Amino acid sequence: MDLRQQITALATRSRDASRLLAKLDTAAKNKLLLAMADSIEQSAAKITVANAKDLEAGKKSGLSSAMLDRLTLTDKRIADIAKGVREVAGLPDPVGTNISEWTRPNGIRIQKVRVPIGVILIIYESRPNVTVDAAVLCFKTGNAVILRGGSEAIHSNLALAEAMNVPGLPADAITVVPTTDRAAIDELLKLDELINLCIPRGGEGLIRAVAEKSRIPVIKHYKGVCHVYVDRDADFDMAEKIILNAKCQRPGVCNAIETLLVDAPLAKTFLPRIEKALTGRGVAIRRDADWTTEYLDLIIGLRVVNGVGEAIDHITQYGSAHSDAIVTKNKETAERFLREVDSSSVFWNASTRLADGGQYGFGAEIGISTDKLHARGPMGLEDLTSYKYVVTGTGQLRE
Amino acid sequence: MDLRQQITALATRSRDASRLLAKLDTAAKNKLLLAMADSIEQSAAKITVANAKDLEAGKKSGLSSAMLDRLTLTDKRIADIAKGVREVAGLPDPVGTNISEWTRPNGIRIQKVRVPIGVILIIYESRPNVTVDAAVLCFKTGNAVILRGGSEAIHSNLALAEAMNVPGLPADAITVVPTTDRAAIDELLKLDELINLCIPRGGEGLIRAVAEKSRIPVIKHYKGVCHVYVDRDADFDMAEKIILNAKCQRPGVCNAIETLLVDAPLAKTFLPRIEKALTGRGVAIRRDADWTTEYLDLIIGLRVVNGVGEAIDHITQYGSAHSDAIVTKNKETAERFLREVDSSSVFWNASTRLADGGQYGFGAEIGISTDKLHARGPMGLEDLTSYKYVVTGTGQLRE
Repeated sequence: MDLRQQITALATRSRDASRLLAKLDTAAKNKLLLAMADSIEQSAAKITVANAKDLEAGKKSGLSSAMLDRLTLTDKRIADIAKGVREVAGLPDPVGTNISEWTRPNGIRIQKVRVPIGVILIIYESRPNVTVDAAVLCFKTGNAVILRGGSEAIHSNLALAEAMNVPGLPADAITVVPTTDRAAIDELLKLDELINLCIPRGGEGLIRAVAEKSRIPVIKHYKGVCHVYVDRDADFDMAEKIILNAKCQRPGVCNAIETLLVDAPLAKTFLPRIEKALTGRGVAIRRDADWTTEYLDLIIGLRVVNGVGEAIDHITQYGSAHSDAIVTKNKETAERFLREVDSSSVFWNASTRLADGGQYGFGAEIGISTDKLHARGPMGLEDLTSYKYVVTGTGQLRE
Repeated sequence: MDLRQQITALATRSRDASRLLAKLDTAAKNKLLLAMADSIEQSAAKITVANAKDLEAGKKSGLSSAMLDRLTLTDKRIADIAKGVREVAGLPDPVGTNISEWTRPNGIRIQKVRVPIGVILIIYESRPNVTVDAAVLCFKTGNAVILRGGSEAIHSNLALAEAMNVPGLPADAITVVPTTDRAAIDELLKLDELINLCIPRGGEGLIRAVAEKSRIPVIKHYKGVCHVYVDRDADFDMAEKIILNAKCQRPGVCNAIETLLVDAPLAKTFLPRIEKALTGRGVAIRRDADWTTEYLDLIIGLRVVNGVGEAIDHITQYGSAHSDAIVTKNKETAERFLREVDSSSVFWNASTRLADGGQYGFGAEIGISTDKLHARGPMGLEDLTSYKYVVTGTGQLRE
């Protein structure tokens, strides 16, 4: 079998598995999730042996110490992964719930019911814990999953998948692509008849490459160039706290801010104060920044704008439509900002760092979509479902 | 300007228009829709002159009389088009409505609010009335629209677009691509930074070509290979009515059935009866059909299956996951069918011909999606929206 046949056979098995998964009820899925958590813990020794292989190869190929750290699976990290699986078992299952339900004048009852999407392909670069996170979220929602992680983690990923393949789990429900051949990705992305959705997770280069090649619908997670706008009517104490939180609490993530917009009347009051506070926290301030750069570091662009209109224009022109905040006591100004800024999350008097599935109460997050179709912003379990119309009648016809 | 530059400039203007459209409130949009309806009626003479050009060219190029009929715009048809626009003005506007709303333990209030998608590209082959239908549904939901109809209708489409461009409508809100050059479609489908969604409407060949080339998310409307399964516990009178309605009421549409599945115990009771009834209505019965063919004609495949399990297996293997029905008095059998048949609409004791935006109460329909992402089944106005999270706080931070 050549690579194309091998990958097509793999995806066909996943498609067949998805049909069995769609029939599992919530209790059966949760029981299997708890068994997976136990199995991951019990397989810790085996997993760390596989992980050691990846680490050794990584050292030889010159991975940075930060990369090696992210790749490392300790007993503590494996226990945390298992804990995460138990948490997913405890989340409500969206499959089978009604999105809405109504009766038509001719008497037919229509239910819009959540169903699994089918087969989901996750392409990622990062830590091996993504293998388990993504697999169990897809499984909880009745989807088969094909996981294609970074080649540097292949042994760890295969060991984790083996541990998740507990007795009673439909065969091929969770599949780690067993080859590190990059051409396998190209073959997978052609299989729109077998795979229903692709979610790439990683750097912008990976995501663009996947989006350009894929015939399968892709939900993208691009960068976050996020803003805080401090309006003339802001509470200065609140504004300072929000800015420091949004910039410094964890600068390397997509919902941290890159640009601070300050209303012109505050140039001699709030502006010197926040400059001092930011500098005091080790943040480099750039007044002539490239406004589209995602620094992911203790660097911030700073621009004085004249009112909320100019702030909205700046965000529209340079932002990434991810997460943007206004600080103001003025309701009318805030409402204009919230309405006119076309970002997946817009905040009034709160930190952009709250743009997160956990913070929104989704219990788990598969990522933050920067797309506008199907799912936008933090994606929870519901976003891993589709729906169908279930119509019940007493012999109704089309007249 | 070469074609690429011309098309990019066109899409950029649509993107800019979409930003203005997102700010229009419902009253302003409805007022413009009513003005469009009036303008279409007042432009009837101009539209029929343009239409005559298309008809003349169509006769020269040898279009069939059926094609010419579909292309023809009479005063009556123009009045019907204007009436349709007024109906859209009367529909509720989904934009700005809350999908859901909740408060988190830290006090932030989260609203999931419907917003326009942005710029929508409609590629279609058929009648010029689609130009107006699609344009006003996109406009009602605050989206800019780029319309690319068949070259045989170019003059009619441009005249209709001109009539819709009423005073007060943001420039470039509704754009008919002014060239019939096929390469324009290829250029449009590359512009994923400017266009948010593509909906192709027409034959399978068109849709596949668009889906393969597009970098823009596509919602596909493939064929309907729909089924009625008559269970051993069916009411024979009801089954006969549903089958005749689903096959004969309008055989040329996607939610008409192509295959009848009859439960084995009915081979000597219901089966001869329905064969006689179908034959009496001029339907050709094929017992050895190619089960994946969409006849769109008075032809039906007929297969005897052993129970609901075999019916589900047949539909899973050969169906198109569009619309499928079971006729039975047995609740348990029905519930299994409704749960396990993975089609966009599943019916219990009702005709598949009811799979329709109007029948479901959506007021309008942009098509019937055979995709599972974003929108599935009959698409109404809500399916032309995205959403954003609006988060209101009192200074909440990420801890």
